[in-house]
Amino acid sequence: MEITAQAIADLLGGEVVGDPAAVVTGPARIEQARKGNICFLANPKYEHYIYDTQASVLLVNRSFVPKQPVPATLVKVDDAYASVALLLEHFSRLRKAQKRGNRLWARLSPKRSIACSARIGKGTYIAPQVYVGPRVKIGRNCELHPGVRILHDCVIGDNCILHADVVIGDDGFGFAPQPDGSYHKIPQLGNVVVEDDVEIGAGTTVDRSTMGSTLIHKGVKIGNLCNIAHNVEIGENTVMAGLVGIAGSAKIGKRCKLGGFAAVNGHLTVPDDTTLAGHTGLITPLKASGKIMMGYPALEYGQYLRAYAHFRRGGESDESSR
Amino acid sequence: MEITAQAIADLLGGEVVGDPAAVVTGPARIEQARKGNICFLANPKYEHYIYDTQASVLLVNRSFVPKQPVPATLVKVDDAYASVALLLEHFSRLRKAQKRGNRLWARLSPKRSIACSARIGKGTYIAPQVYVGPRVKIGRNCELHPGVRILHDCVIGDNCILHADVVIGDDGFGFAPQPDGSYHKIPQLGNVVVEDDVEIGAGTTVDRSTMGSTLIHKGVKIGNLCNIAHNVEIGENTVMAGLVGIAGSAKIGKRCKLGGFAAVNGHLTVPDDTTLAGHTGLITPLKASGKIMMGYPALEYGQYLRAYAHFRRGGESDESSR
Amino acid sequence: MEITAQAIADLLGGEVVGDPAAVVTGPARIEQARKGNICFLANPKYEHYIYDTQASVLLVNRSFVPKQPVPATLVKVDDAYASVALLLEHFSRLRKAQKRGNRLWARLSPKRSIACSARIGKGTYIAPQVYVGPRVKIGRNCELHPGVRILHDCVIGDNCILHADVVIGDDGFGFAPQPDGSYHKIPQLGNVVVEDDVEIGAGTTVDRSTMGSTLIHKGVKIGNLCNIAHNVEIGENTVMAGLVGIAGSAKIGKRCKLGGFAAVNGHLTVPDDTTLAGHTGLITPLKASGKIMMGYPALEYGQYLRAYAHFRRGGESDESSR
Repeated sequence: MEITAQAIADLLGGEVVGDPAAVVTGPARIEQARKGNICFLANPKYEHYIYDTQASVLLVNRSFVPKQPVPATLVKVDDAYASVALLLEHFSRLRKAQKRGNRLWARLSPKRSIACSARIGKGTYIAPQVYVGPRVKIGRNCELHPGVRILHDCVIGDNCILHADVVIGDDGFGFAPQPDGSYHKIPQLGNVVVEDDVEIGAGTTVDRSTMGSTLIHKGVKIGNLCNIAHNVEIGENTVMAGLVGIAGSAKIGKRCKLGGFAAVNGHLTVPDDTTLAGHTGLITPLKASGKIMMGYPALEYGQYLRAYAHFRRGGESDESSR
Repeated sequence: MEITAQAIADLLGGEVVGDPAAVVTGPARIEQARKGNICFLANPKYEHYIYDTQASVLLVNRSFVPKQPVPATLVKVDDAYASVALLLEHFSRLRKAQKRGNRLWARLSPKRSIACSARIGKGTYIAPQVYVGPRVKIGRNCELHPGVRILHDCVIGDNCILHADVVIGDDGFGFAPQPDGSYHKIPQLGNVVVEDDVEIGAGTTVDRSTMGSTLIHKGVKIGNLCNIAHNVEIGENTVMAGLVGIAGSAKIGKRCKLGGFAAVNGHLTVPDDTTLAGHTGLITPLKASGKIMMGYPALEYGQYLRAYAHFRRGGESDESSR
Repeated sequence: MEITAQAIADLLGGEVVGDPAAVVTGPARIEQARKGNICFLANPKYEHYIYDTQASVLLVNRSFVPKQPVPATLVKVDDAYASVALLLEHFSRLRKAQKRGNRLWARLSPKRSIACSARIGKGTYIAPQVYVGPRVKIGRNCELHPGVRILHDCVIGDNCILHADVVIGDDGFGFAPQPDGSYHKIPQLGNVVVEDDVEIGAGTTVDRSTMGSTLIHKGVKIGNLCNIAHNVEIGENTVMAGLVGIAGSAKIGKRCKLGGFAAVNGHLTVPDDTTLAGHTGLITPLKASGKIMMGYPALEYGQYLRAYAHFRRGGESDESSR
C-alpha cells in the first residue's frame, strides 16, 4: 500500500513541488506525522507544524505560500480540504481490496456461525465471530464486523456496514401485566429490515417487530450503543449519535438528526427534518417538520434556551436577595 | 408450521365464517398482511383495511358486523385482543419446538465455550457463540442467545431468557483512590444470582458483587443496554426500559417501573411500586412507596410538571418584557 | 484456595483470638456469610450480625470488644477496613494463578480469533471468544475477557483489563453530508492507543481515529457501556461511570470524574480535575480546572442546585396562587 507524491497529484489533479518520487504509506494528523505520512493543512493555526514535520508529503491549497523552507514534498491542489476525503477513500479502497482477499476463506471458517438457510450477497465481507441466523438475507458489498449477530429471518440490504457487536433482531420488549403483578412475555414474531447504504455503530441493538418489520430505511446512519425498539421505523438519511433510545412503535421521519442520549417515546411520529439536541426527551407529538427541540420534556430550541437562561438567573436572584 | 382457520377457532373457542380450511403460516399487522397471514382487528380505526386485505384469516370480536364483503375468512371470538396473545404463544411454541431439535448438537459444538464445571438444566437452549464460565449454574428451560457471556460462579434460575450479548458477572467498578491520583482496583469476588422467570435485553451488563451476590429477583424484566452495577438488588417483577443505569449497592423494590435513561445513585433504596420517568435521576432517598418521580434531581411527577410549566413560561415572559 | 486464620493474621500483621487453624475459602458480606467465609466489621450498625454468624473468621479492629460471646475466630488488626483491600487482593491473586495455568492452551485454541500479525505480551490472559485483529499490539499482564474485540492496528499497554464485549477500534462516526440529503462515509484510518494500567468496562466502545490515534492515557478507568468517539483523548487517571458519552475530538483532562449519562460535546477541551455530575451535558468550553458541573447545558454545581431549588418552588408558587 504505497503511493508516490506524483501519483497523488495525478489522482487529485494537483501539482508536485519537491520530490515526485516521495513515497506515502498512509495519512496522519500533522501534529503526529512520521516518515511515509501524508498530511494536509486546512486550518492556518496548524501552519507552524509544517516547517519541521517529519511527514513525507503535505497537501496544500494552490494559493499557499510557505513563510520558511518546508522539508516535505508539497502537493498543491485547488481545495486541500475537499481533496482529503478523496484521498482517504482511495486508501480505504486499497485496504479493503486486501481484506476482500480473505473472503472465501471467511465463509468456510469454523470461526463464524452462518445458518445454511442464510443467503449472503456477492462481495459481502463477514468477519470472524459473526452470527447469521436461519433464513437471514444479506445483500451485496456489506461489511459485518466481529461479533455482529443477525438473528433469524432479518433482512439487510446492499452496501451496509454493521460494526462490532451490533445485534439485529433480538426480541422486542413486550410484556402483558398479569393480575398478580408478574408479566407475561408477548412473543415477538416479526423481523428487522435494514435497507441499502445503512451504517450501524458498535454495540447498537435493533429489536425485531412483534409482527411485521422494524424498518431502517435507506441511507440511515446510527452511532454506537443505540437502542432501537420493536416496530420502530426510521426514515431515509436520518442520522443519530451514540447512546440514543427510540421506544417501541415510534416512527422517525426522513433526514432527522438525533443527538447523544436523545429519546423518543413509544408510538410517537417525528416529522421529517426534525433535530433533537442531546439529552432531549420527546414525549408528546410534534406536528411541523424541521423543528429543533431540546429539553425533557422537549421544547423548541430557542424557547428552551431562553427558559434555561431564566432558570439559571433564578439561582442567582435567590442568592442576591439573601 | 401451518395451521387452518378451523384449528385456530378450536384453539381459541371461536367460530369460522368463511373457509375453515384456509391455511395460516404466521401472523402479520393488517396493513402489511399477505396470503397465509392471520391478522386481528382491535382498533376500529383500522377497520377499512379489512375490506381489501390479502390476509387469509382475520380474528374479530363475535359482535363485529362488517359493512362490506370481506375477502378473508373470519374467526369470531369473544375477545379478539385477548386471543392474539394466546395465538402468538402458540406460534412461538411451534417455532421453539423446531429450535429445540438442535439442542443436543448445540452442547457438543465447538461454536460455544462451556466450562466443564458448569451445570446446565434440562430444556435450556444455548445458541452458538455463548460463553459459560467455570462453576456457573443455569436452570431449566432457559434461552441463551448468541454472544451471551455468563462469567464464573454466576447462577441463573429457571425459565430465564438472556438476549444476544448480555454479560452477566463482569467485574464491578470498584477502585480505591491513591495519594498520587491513581486508582487501585478492588477485586470483585462475588457473583450474580438471577432468579426464575427473568428476561434481560440485548447488550445489558450485570456486574458481579464485590462480595456476596448482585441479585435479580424473580420475574424481573430488563431492556437492552442497561448497566446494573455491583451489589445491586432488584425486587420481584420490576421492569426497566433500555439504557437504564443502576449504580453500585442500590436496592430497587418490587414492581417498580424505570423509563429509558433513568438512573439511581449508589447505595439508595427505592421503595416498592416506584415509577421513574425517562431521564430521571434519583439521587436522594425516597421514603414512601408508589411514587412517580421525574427530573434530575428527581421530584414528584406532578410537582415536576408544574415546575416545568413555570420554567417554560420563564422564557416567554423574558421575551415579552423586552 | 484455602487459608487459615493464622496465615491471615500473619499476612495482615494481626492477632488471632480463637482457633488459629480455622479454614477460610473466601470472603463474604456478614449478613450472607457461611462456614468457610471471612467477614469484616467496619460499620457498627452491622455489629449485631457477629453474634450469630456462621462465618469462620471475623476481621475486627484491635480496639473492638464484643458485648457477647462470638462463635467465629477473630483476627484483630490495626485497621480492619484497610486490611480488607489487602485480603481481597490476596484472594484475587490466588484465583488468577489458577486461571493463568490455562494460558498457553488459550492461545492455541480455535475458540479465539487472533491474527498472526498481532503481538501479545507475556503474562497476558486472553479468554475464549476474543478477537485480536491484524497488527494489534497488546502489552504484558493484561486480561481480555470473553468477547473483547480489538480491531486492526490498535495498541494496548501493560496491565490493562478489558471486560467482556469491549470494542476497541470500530470506525468513528464520520459522514460528509451530500447535496441530495444522503451522507458519504469518511474513511476512518487511524487507530486507538490505550496506555498502561487502564480498565474498561463491559460493552464499552472506543472508536478509532480518522487519522492518528484516539488516546486513552495511563491509569484511566472507564465503566460499562460508554461510548468514546473518534479522535478523543482522555487524560491520566480520569474515571467515568457507566453509560457516559464523549463526542468526537473532545479532549478530557487528567483526574476528571464523569457520572453516569454525562456527555461532552465534540471538540471541547475539559480542564484537569473537572467533575461532571450524572446526566450533565457539557456543550460550551470550560476554562478553569477543578470545577464541578451539573445540568444540561452544564452550570456550576452550586448554581445549578440553587437554580433547581428555585425551579422546584416555581411549581409550588403556581399551585398556591390558584
